[in-house]
Amino acid sequence: MSTHQTERIIKMNLNAWESQNKRFSELIEKLTDAQLLSETAPGRNTGAYLLGHIVAVNDDMLRLLGLRDKFFPEYTEIFIKSPDKSGKTFPSVAELRAAYHKTTNELNAHFNKFSTEEWLSKHTAVSEEDFAKEPMRNKLNVMISRTLHLSNHMGQIIYLKN
Amino acid sequence: MSTHQTERIIKMNLNAWESQNKRFSELIEKLTDAQLLSETAPGRNTGAYLLGHIVAVNDDMLRLLGLRDKFFPEYTEIFIKSPDKSGKTFPSVAELRAAYHKTTNELNAHFNKFSTEEWLSKHTAVSEEDFAKEPMRNKLNVMISRTLHLSNHMGQIIYLKN
Repeated sequence: MSTHQTERIIKMNLNAWESQNKRFSELIEKLTDAQLLSETAPGRNTGAYLLGHIVAVNDDMLRLLGLRDKFFPEYTEIFIKSPDKSGKTFPSVAELRAAYHKTTNELNAHFNKFSTEEWLSKHTAVSEEDFAKEPMRNKLNVMISRTLHLSNHMGQIIYLKN
Repeated sequence: MSTHQTERIIKMNLNAWESQNKRFSELIEKLTDAQLLSETAPGRNTGAYLLGHIVAVNDDMLRLLGLRDKFFPEYTEIFIKSPDKSGKTFPSVAELRAAYHKTTNELNAHFNKFSTEEWLSKHTAVSEEDFAKEPMRNKLNVMISRTLHLSNHMGQIIYLKN
């Protein structure tokens, strides 16, 4: 019973990740390049910056979960370490959309195969010693946090819709 | 081991709810009444509407989880069934902040006492028959969904900050 409960709760969290990504995917496909290049509100981040930011953060999850190297290591400097309008050259909107799909598809392929033990194992940014004391610093928690991050910025990017 | 795993994952989800609410609470305390009465972006929802909307949705969780009647049943008409600028009279910003704290504190008092079985039991909007087929329609799933809802609108209300 408890094993089933654990699997069920992990599936609920995975469903939340997938449904937020489905909504986000539909949103960025619906928005035109010109819309995504606009500010989400006056003086605020553009859609393109936020899209690149989400890709950079999710791409970094591949590393953090020990799955593979980042696909787009150059995004970290442009979309995490630098603010919008930094003068750094952005990839095109088409490239950003493709990067989002590539990263998300790779994550989902792994997520759908993870066992309960893998979900609850430590991520790569915590030591064995710290993890023994703080077992919540596991892979599932990283995904929960990234789902909220996506939802937060989706609330902003949606302002680009007419 | 599995029992511990289940409890750990529920706690991770509860921590996510609590940390989003802590951030939100700090945000609405920091914003002035005038800021909250402004549009989050030109032509978009005001902070006051979104705050009332969050209270209405979370207050409804009390009913949906079978805990008690809504504290603010009148908010449903103003902040869920009607759009912003409907002409309906809003409570003052001070009342909205107080309503947010009252609802959140009540939810948290219950959440901190819920057993695993209570979290995984059905919410009041699903029949026993449907729940037997769809066991994910449980109380924990409602909280996960409301945490994402809060995060989504918090991304918008944060645009009221200078």
